[in-house]
Amino acid sequence: MKIQIINGPNLNLLGMREPSVYGDQSFSAFFERLKEVFPEIRLDHYQSNVEGEIINKIHETGFDYDGIILNAGGYTHTSVAIRDAIKSVRTPVIEVHISNVYAREEFRHQSMISAVCAGVIGGFGLNSYRLAVEALIMANKTD
Amino acid sequence: MKIQIINGPNLNLLGMREPSVYGDQSFSAFFERLKEVFPEIRLDHYQSNVEGEIINKIHETGFDYDGIILNAGGYTHTSVAIRDAIKSVRTPVIEVHISNVYAREEFRHQSMISAVCAGVIGGFGLNSYRLAVEALIMANKTD
Amino acid sequence: MKIQIINGPNLNLLGMREPSVYGDQSFSAFFERLKEVFPEIRLDHYQSNVEGEIINKIHETGFDYDGIILNAGGYTHTSVAIRDAIKSVRTPVIEVHISNVYAREEFRHQSMISAVCAGVIGGFGLNSYRLAVEALIMANKTD
Amino acid sequence: MKIQIINGPNLNLLGMREPSVYGDQSFSAFFERLKEVFPEIRLDHYQSNVEGEIINKIHETGFDYDGIILNAGGYTHTSVAIRDAIKSVRTPVIEVHISNVYAREEFRHQSMISAVCAGVIGGFGLNSYRLAVEALIMANKTD
Amino acid sequence: MKIQIINGPNLNLLGMREPSVYGDQSFSAFFERLKEVFPEIRLDHYQSNVEGEIINKIHETGFDYDGIILNAGGYTHTSVAIRDAIKSVRTPVIEVHISNVYAREEFRHQSMISAVCAGVIGGFGLNSYRLAVEALIMANKTD
Amino acid sequence: MKIQIINGPNLNLLGMREPSVYGDQSFSAFFERLKEVFPEIRLDHYQSNVEGEIINKIHETGFDYDGIILNAGGYTHTSVAIRDAIKSVRTPVIEVHISNVYAREEFRHQSMISAVCAGVIGGFGLNSYRLAVEALIMANKTD
Amino acid sequence: MKIQIINGPNLNLLGMREPSVYGDQSFSAFFERLKEVFPEIRLDHYQSNVEGEIINKIHETGFDYDGIILNAGGYTHTSVAIRDAIKSVRTPVIEVHISNVYAREEFRHQSMISAVCAGVIGGFGLNSYRLAVEALIMANKTD
Amino acid sequence: MKIQIINGPNLNLLGMREPSVYGDQSFSAFFERLKEVFPEIRLDHYQSNVEGEIINKIHETGFDYDGIILNAGGYTHTSVAIRDAIKSVRTPVIEVHISNVYAREEFRHQSMISAVCAGVIGGFGLNSYRLAVEALIMANKTD
Amino acid sequence: MKIQIINGPNLNLLGMREPSVYGDQSFSAFFERLKEVFPEIRLDHYQSNVEGEIINKIHETGFDYDGIILNAGGYTHTSVAIRDAIKSVRTPVIEVHISNVYAREEFRHQSMISAVCAGVIGGFGLNSYRLAVEALIMANKTD
Amino acid sequence: MKIQIINGPNLNLLGMREPSVYGDQSFSAFFERLKEVFPEIRLDHYQSNVEGEIINKIHETGFDYDGIILNAGGYTHTSVAIRDAIKSVRTPVIEVHISNVYAREEFRHQSMISAVCAGVIGGFGLNSYRLAVEALIMANKTD
Amino acid sequence: MKIQIINGPNLNLLGMREPSVYGDQSFSAFFERLKEVFPEIRLDHYQSNVEGEIINKIHETGFDYDGIILNAGGYTHTSVAIRDAIKSVRTPVIEVHISNVYAREEFRHQSMISAVCAGVIGGFGLNSYRLAVEALIMANKTD
Amino acid sequence: MKIQIINGPNLNLLGMREPSVYGDQSFSAFFERLKEVFPEIRLDHYQSNVEGEIINKIHETGFDYDGIILNAGGYTHTSVAIRDAIKSVRTPVIEVHISNVYAREEFRHQSMISAVCAGVIGGFGLNSYRLAVEALIMANKTD
Repeated sequence: MKIQIINGPNLNLLGMREPSVYGDQSFSAFFERLKEVFPEIRLDHYQSNVEGEIINKIHETGFDYDGIILNAGGYTHTSVAIRDAIKSVRTPVIEVHISNVYAREEFRHQSMISAVCAGVIGGFGLNSYRLAVEALIMANKTD
Repeated sequence: MKIQIINGPNLNLLGMREPSVYGDQSFSAFFERLKEVFPEIRLDHYQSNVEGEIINKIHETGFDYDGIILNAGGYTHTSVAIRDAIKSVRTPVIEVHISNVYAREEFRHQSMISAVCAGVIGGFGLNSYRLAVEALIMANKTD
Repeated sequence: MKIQIINGPNLNLLGMREPSVYGDQSFSAFFERLKEVFPEIRLDHYQSNVEGEIINKIHETGFDYDGIILNAGGYTHTSVAIRDAIKSVRTPVIEVHISNVYAREEFRHQSMISAVCAGVIGGFGLNSYRLAVEALIMANKTD
Repeated sequence: MKIQIINGPNLNLLGMREPSVYGDQSFSAFFERLKEVFPEIRLDHYQSNVEGEIINKIHETGFDYDGIILNAGGYTHTSVAIRDAIKSVRTPVIEVHISNVYAREEFRHQSMISAVCAGVIGGFGLNSYRLAVEALIMANKTD
Repeated sequence: MKIQIINGPNLNLLGMREPSVYGDQSFSAFFERLKEVFPEIRLDHYQSNVEGEIINKIHETGFDYDGIILNAGGYTHTSVAIRDAIKSVRTPVIEVHISNVYAREEFRHQSMISAVCAGVIGGFGLNSYRLAVEALIMANKTD
Repeated sequence: MKIQIINGPNLNLLGMREPSVYGDQSFSAFFERLKEVFPEIRLDHYQSNVEGEIINKIHETGFDYDGIILNAGGYTHTSVAIRDAIKSVRTPVIEVHISNVYAREEFRHQSMISAVCAGVIGGFGLNSYRLAVEALIMANKTD
Repeated sequence: MKIQIINGPNLNLLGMREPSVYGDQSFSAFFERLKEVFPEIRLDHYQSNVEGEIINKIHETGFDYDGIILNAGGYTHTSVAIRDAIKSVRTPVIEVHISNVYAREEFRHQSMISAVCAGVIGGFGLNSYRLAVEALIMANKTD
Repeated sequence: MKIQIINGPNLNLLGMREPSVYGDQSFSAFFERLKEVFPEIRLDHYQSNVEGEIINKIHETGFDYDGIILNAGGYTHTSVAIRDAIKSVRTPVIEVHISNVYAREEFRHQSMISAVCAGVIGGFGLNSYRLAVEALIMANKTD
Repeated sequence: MKIQIINGPNLNLLGMREPSVYGDQSFSAFFERLKEVFPEIRLDHYQSNVEGEIINKIHETGFDYDGIILNAGGYTHTSVAIRDAIKSVRTPVIEVHISNVYAREEFRHQSMISAVCAGVIGGFGLNSYRLAVEALIMANKTD
Repeated sequence: MKIQIINGPNLNLLGMREPSVYGDQSFSAFFERLKEVFPEIRLDHYQSNVEGEIINKIHETGFDYDGIILNAGGYTHTSVAIRDAIKSVRTPVIEVHISNVYAREEFRHQSMISAVCAGVIGGFGLNSYRLAVEALIMANKTD
Repeated sequence: MKIQIINGPNLNLLGMREPSVYGDQSFSAFFERLKEVFPEIRLDHYQSNVEGEIINKIHETGFDYDGIILNAGGYTHTSVAIRDAIKSVRTPVIEVHISNVYAREEFRHQSMISAVCAGVIGGFGLNSYRLAVEALIMANKTD
Repeated sequence: MKIQIINGPNLNLLGMREPSVYGDQSFSAFFERLKEVFPEIRLDHYQSNVEGEIINKIHETGFDYDGIILNAGGYTHTSVAIRDAIKSVRTPVIEVHISNVYAREEFRHQSMISAVCAGVIGGFGLNSYRLAVEALIMANKTD
């Protein structure tokens, strides 16, 4: 089973950026631990601040991976192009958020991509990613 | 560890109601299996079609349970009173949805309760409940 | 043929409440006459001010009655939960209103339930219920 | 008793136009049967695609007929001028729709004319017209 | 000096229609008196309930008359086509209203045509037309 | 003089719930003191989290009590049904709020019931109820 | 017959201010000519940039003058207080505008005062004031 | 204890202005009686139609009075400047209204100042002022 | 191959009307040249200012022509009735505009008919019609 | 004559992506055929998923090419930056769409770039590009 | 070079009012220092809480001063009249704000006057005024 | 002191692009002069049309520079991602605009980034950048 995690803008600063909202752990430290939790799964991680490169990665992994876990950061609320990318591929995409976006500014309450994702998980800190991996495993078993 | 699952209006019809959206499994069958998956946890289930009874149950379990998993059904999108109930208690509440509400009618895209919940999980069928239990366990370990 | 009439909030006050809008006849008096008009049909009547109990009654009669005539009163304009209940059952539901709701306050112009009802009849006083019975009879013949 | 039925734009294509929405029966065939059902009533039928001609017909029949049954088609949602015409005459006007307009596109949910009509009947196929005739007979008896 | 008065939908019923709003005088009676007040001016009057015929008349008189006085009735609030007609011709058009449209329903507060008219006069009963004639005479003198 | 106080959802938690917003006093403790302040008045108290039961109580006391003091809690902002109940009865209803609802979330700024209440008092903590009693006494004297 | 003209903010700059919109004539020059046109009428003129002083003048003249001609300038679009002042007095008030406000910025299309004025005249340059005087004379004759 | 009452635009006409809405009593007559009811309190009254002068008075009394009772009239719905003045001073301000503003035009339902006032009292006629004095006395005792 | 061009309101004035927007060529001159460019195609032209007559023509040609090229002028932005007509017929309809409607007033940015047309071509002057003919030829070849 | 075709996000997947909406042909296959149709024109093609690279290409070709044919994909509906790029260059830009965007989701009905393009062509499948080339040739001849 | 600083409502309380937002320095202390920084420039200062007096001062200095620096306080967001005053004069006006208004309440994000000012400077505390003086000097040199 | 200037999309065309709005000077020419004005400050300049590269540069300089001067061009009005980047770093960011964006299209009136910037300067042509440098120097001295 192959799962691609894609992190969008500003998530490279995790651990440095607004720790009260996003926690003080870097994503790479978390990612190492995540791979240990799921040793039987190939987990890949990609981060970019460029909307188009996120689309490129969705295209690249969207036909032969078993799942994409996408935290599109600020693009979540504005990007028709990422929405179209998700709809263009076959791999199911799960939208994740570290913080509870619905408890923050009004403009974060709307997601352009939720409607085309398989599911949404948000508000559990970095555990949101782990729950998404679990969700993909469960879905895999059900099929 | 004690977890209360609260299901709102029409979820008593699960398995009979719009199977293409909600699946053909009854909640009680699923709930039996769920308890087997987490034998170490006390899992309680309550369902009501009455908004005020859902509030009553949140009050009743909201001070000594370790988590509430709430699928408020149609009240999700309209109920200030349930929102206030969640904010009034100490137990963390996780909002779950069986279907991907963001992919359905416009009025289902807004949730009155997400902002006061600990997190949101939606779109994974009945597995959304199981993921919520996992989330509560993870949060418990972190604390 | 079995038809269930369900009346929502404040309709128990019919005859006492704003007679210039709703008339001065009680519903039970009218209901007796209605049964005389349609002796061959089993007509049942239920009234509740509780949203969830209206849902309960829809569930209870929504699988083996031939029609439900629903005046959801004030819940007409706000209740996603009743809408979902109507969609969850097999029996066709007709939305009726005593007054012409479109000629009253702005918030009464929107109905949350019209879209999932078989049809809408409003503005004819208590005759709206009688027309709804006729509509169910006609539909029955056509099928 | 004299009743005028007025059909607005595109209703001349009934039977040919989107049969899944409007059925496959022409209005004239239905109208012949309708007259047989109510032999004691003079029923007239008029159809026009021109907004102003519908107004002309409302003026013409709006002072000495006992009722007008109006399906204003697409003008229902936009015409202040037809609304004013209805308000200008003495004869009560009943708004009818073949389909359930509230279950279709957003712009069909608003009616410019409901507020000035005596009542609204929609969603019962061609039976909507028959119910409207019944409604006028009932109102006549009550007066 | 040649002035064309164009009256839109339902104004043919003036005197019969909602006398509390529009007065009880017919337009033709008023028009006779108006011609006596301005004997030196050629005053023409045209009324139609058909939007397109109003456009036809604007085209017909919009190049050689000195002024058009337009009461577009219900089309005032909805007609892009009449707006375009006014903009297409050379003759200045004055928008008049018998009643104070701003004191009535919300949808009457917006005019599609005010922006392309030379000026607006409303709320003075039938005197609105007389003031419009005065306005055209004054403008003529100023030029 | 007989006055009914009706408290809506979550007000049973008063003293336990968000003390920074609602204070740390339970309603029953306050109610005892209130009765001492107005010994000449019969003061009754009812609390329910169920919208329909609030309506029932309004119906029950709305014809022979001298005043109803209603804190509808979260239903204040959404309930057409309670609005209709208030309009259906003869007893004047005063809307009270403990907190200043206008200083809180946007959705609390709109009240569905203010328009049909005799008056509104909000922001004075539990004293809002006492002021409402005073207001009813004053109104009684004026009449 | 006594008529008060009240000019609001920035109208003291008439002739100096944006001549392409408002013309190059000062109001006092125009006012002298206006008095000559209507020698039988007492015409008073008042200008202020202060909203509250405009209200004072409406109060002062609103009970014994025969008409007020009000160009409230920028306050037209925002002032509830001037609207209330107009409603508080007995003298009919005519709203005038020099330019066609409906052909300018969006926020000028809404008037807070039109609904409570006797009528509206706009777009005729300084002749708008003269037409307003005519309108008051006509209304006086009709009464 | 020192309390300043500030009345905004058009309240000088009380007793003369729309008696069906505001009653037929002048404010000064009421004010004399009010002082008799609270002989132990220094009550001052100020009225102005000028927004800026209301701000001046708030500044002047906002640091050493024990309370300000403000009926900002039409400025209630539009004035950011008065809102800022209230926030700039130390004295608590109570917003009062004679009529039930929520039962009147849509634009009166929004208050720019409620959010920064200590509380809101409206709909009790001139008794609203008396209740506000009571509220200040109660708050004084609690502190 | 038979193609019907239908021109809506004010297009009869082409060449005379706002030449800076619509050019100075009459449609009939252009139409002669267009027929020369496509000698193998039967091209018909119809113009009307009446909404209902445009609907009539769509009905008349909408079952046996190979394509309709429709410039609905001002009705583009408001006509549900024309939208319904297009949906009622079998012939594909192409929406054309001479000017770039999206670069003009806000209300021209919305088209009621685009959603039911086969395609949209706008902004190319009279060449928009020629491109539409090309489009129909291409589509014909593809089929 | 030199024409640059620029394709935005996800158009690299053409033929693979949602074939029911976009067809099953790859763009490169189509592009080869397009060059054969117009042998006398230099046709260049560029595709990028990165908004900023689309802007770069517009800058690069926007001063010496004779036309740009732009399908900005999902950026069409959100990109102020591409709009500014189009306005910054001299070469006319034609907006094309393969599908009829107006018949799809609400957010696709608004284009940020239509207003600054020379024209818009949409709904004709890949033929939209060919029509755009024709349009540029026609415009070239007219100049 | 002559520059007029105009401060609007509540700015007289600077130093006393919400020090966390506006700082604890009075404007007059700051103004003395500002004059020392720019000894070659005549700097005048005016403050008023009255909207109309701000307009008066703009008129008074708007034809012979070299620049006006305007902090319109709460009137910034509501005053069409001040906007018109700025447009009526020749002197360039710079809008300044002490705080970052865009980071505060929603209603402070819209400015009625920015569109007619030469430029906007906000968020730099009292330095915003100093930067505005610099801006006027720079503009003076450029001319 | 180290200051980074970041210019967003289309600002590379400065001097070539819409000179009436943006002037005819290239940014590099201006930048050379700017460095001469502030010889004691290290001024760096970066321009990119790619949203993500602007974010990269904010990350890169946002922890050790003393200030960032950001003209985000078209991304100003749409980019949540740049807003998040600004909030993620420690260096204060000043938003600048060459033109007065508030005097242009509606969609330019809203800035996604103003709320998280230290301040905003707009409308002074290229001097906006120079004023921003001054602002950073002043802030530096104050601290």
